[in-house]
Amino acid sequence: MIMELSSLTLGEYSLVYNLFSFTIASMLAAGLFFILAQPRVAPKYRISLIVSTLVVGIAAYHYFRITGSWVDAYTLSEAGNYVASGKPFNDAYRYVDWLLTVPLLLVELVLVLNLSREKSSSMLTKLVIAAGAMIILGYPGEIAMDNGTRALWGFLSTIPFVYIVWVLWKQLGDTMGDQPERVRILFRNIRLLLLGTWGFYPIVYMAPFLGLTGAESQVAIQVGYSIADVLAKAGYGVMIYAIAREKSLAEGYSLEKAAA
Amino acid sequence: MIMELSSLTLGEYSLVYNLFSFTIASMLAAGLFFILAQPRVAPKYRISLIVSTLVVGIAAYHYFRITGSWVDAYTLSEAGNYVASGKPFNDAYRYVDWLLTVPLLLVELVLVLNLSREKSSSMLTKLVIAAGAMIILGYPGEIAMDNGTRALWGFLSTIPFVYIVWVLWKQLGDTMGDQPERVRILFRNIRLLLLGTWGFYPIVYMAPFLGLTGAESQVAIQVGYSIADVLAKAGYGVMIYAIAREKSLAEGYSLEKAAA
Repeated sequence: MIMELSSLTLGEYSLVYNLFSFTIASMLAAGLFFILAQPRVAPKYRISLIVSTLVVGIAAYHYFRITGSWVDAYTLSEAGNYVASGKPFNDAYRYVDWLLTVPLLLVELVLVLNLSREKSSSMLTKLVIAAGAMIILGYPGEIAMDNGTRALWGFLSTIPFVYIVWVLWKQLGDTMGDQPERVRILFRNIRLLLLGTWGFYPIVYMAPFLGLTGAESQVAIQVGYSIADVLAKAGYGVMIYAIAREKSLAEGYSLEKAAA
Repeated sequence: MIMELSSLTLGEYSLVYNLFSFTIASMLAAGLFFILAQPRVAPKYRISLIVSTLVVGIAAYHYFRITGSWVDAYTLSEAGNYVASGKPFNDAYRYVDWLLTVPLLLVELVLVLNLSREKSSSMLTKLVIAAGAMIILGYPGEIAMDNGTRALWGFLSTIPFVYIVWVLWKQLGDTMGDQPERVRILFRNIRLLLLGTWGFYPIVYMAPFLGLTGAESQVAIQVGYSIADVLAKAGYGVMIYAIAREKSLAEGYSLEKAAA
């Protein structure tokens, strides 16, 4: 069941290691920001910042674990490169992370859209079920030894994925019309960020099909997922904050007045 | 690819170790101050304190990691000195740290200048791109085995560096005129701190050229960067706070009134 780990050069090993560390630092800093910046948005939007904090907190925890697993899975050889230590590298951390954070990311976005309560909850129910299906269907392919199995589960996982992206894209488009100018620009940007970052995951998943060697594909997968996670969680949270801030200002919220 | 680590005396090893610990304590204390002192500045300046908190938080994280890597990279020998353990010392932490914190330091300063929104964002875009280029170009030289390569990348990295320092120096000068007397003095001081601390980094980078032995140059680099980081992050954040506080007072902000 375990994917064989190829030997890595010092450069390849370190690239992944340092990117994990970069991801932890980014997630923790983003979380600190979402906590400290709460008074800067109107009270009704603070729940989006709270959810953002949870997302990056969960991600920071998993990246600590992933880093530990990465360190344990390799040993520095006499020749100066990193060879498999025999301990498996635990891919499941990512999937557990996504199982928790993807529904929260959806909640964050739907909350900041400020739809009617009925509309929000019916939309969220469908999206969260689709997100669960997407992640659970992707995992068997991720740990599969052969590319055929990977492709099959990857394809099944893509069906709920496309559904989620399509619903969000459409909903963001529908909501955009009613927003003030500056908020509209932010909505357009978050729609592009969403498509860009979410679209990145299936590409990374498909890395083994791109003619890369074992080592190259291992590194590409870790690098790709880490960058995608930073953008889709910390970067996305900052955009949600920016939207909440602009909406607060547009609705006459002022920290000066609130503090007075 | 790995820079060979020279053996260190107990004193050399401990100097670096204790300075790392000093840096962690300074960063955490500064962060705590920036959080707790928020009510002392007018609401519009609090974002600068929030960003200062992120900067020292990210730095504290990296100094914990750097300390761990330092401890792992050496073993206490029978003879009582510290010899390379075979594990590489990870220089990349500093560069990852700078990649995250330098843009935030620029944001901090530009925010406290309180320029128009358009001016701020166009200036920040250019500065942040230059900061990224500066750090990315510096790294290959930092990990290079030979001084020629180090000098080449160091030189390339200096071009965006000079650009950033020049833009900030000029902008601070331009803004100074409009400020109340006390704020003007603080602007003059932060301009000097900026030049002094930023100017320190290239000197440290060039340590291997100053005729130091391997051990001396290793120690000089770690000591130099740590001192520069404390001043450029914690010290700089305190000055940003002082500016924000003076501006708040000059604009009639009073904690007593705000709390009442």
